[in-house]
Amino acid sequence: MTTGTAQLDAVFTALGDPTRRDIVARLSRGDATVTELAEPYAMSLQAVSQHIRVLERCGLVSRGRDRQARPCRLEPGVLREAESWLEESRRTWSARMDRLEAHLAAVQERGQA
Amino acid sequence: MTTGTAQLDAVFTALGDPTRRDIVARLSRGDATVTELAEPYAMSLQAVSQHIRVLERCGLVSRGRDRQARPCRLEPGVLREAESWLEESRRTWSARMDRLEAHLAAVQERGQA
Repeated sequence: MTTGTAQLDAVFTALGDPTRRDIVARLSRGDATVTELAEPYAMSLQAVSQHIRVLERCGLVSRGRDRQARPCRLEPGVLREAESWLEESRRTWSARMDRLEAHLAAVQERGQA
Repeated sequence: MTTGTAQLDAVFTALGDPTRRDIVARLSRGDATVTELAEPYAMSLQAVSQHIRVLERCGLVSRGRDRQARPCRLEPGVLREAESWLEESRRTWSARMDRLEAHLAAVQERGQA
């Protein structure tokens, strides 16, 4: 699956909320129903459902087909895409720093020769 | 540096915008002034400055002290903190899948014995 720009917008925006990040962390440990997810929060079931809908819309969470419970499940591929984006920028930065260091070392060596 | 919940909120929210992600990617390749950063966009210098301020407020970008140009610089530590958060959830998920697989293999083996 390729995560387009609009989806990445939605994924990062969704993760900009602490309750939604909590829900993602919770789902990484196991699928859970909305009722189970709502339990630790002093929040209405409706408010939690709304957070889950945001996570569903950006693709981070999917819902099971079982009509009664419809457990929520984390979609790790989407998580991975967001991680890859961050990784790429950080790696580009690191590579630049390595080149800079090598350049400075070469300059210093020439100065000592 | 430890990125608190509020900072992580701000970092992910800041990255939920394609222009700001572009600016971060651009800065990973080298420091740049606001004028240089604004160049590829059909956007006012003021609009670009506003995006940069959002990136500064969450700590992803810092500005140089040179009064004339004040080049923007990426802060890789903050990028790394966001990446670590995603990595942890994905790893927890992977570990769970590995355990599930091992469990299923063991069940199957017992069935065949």
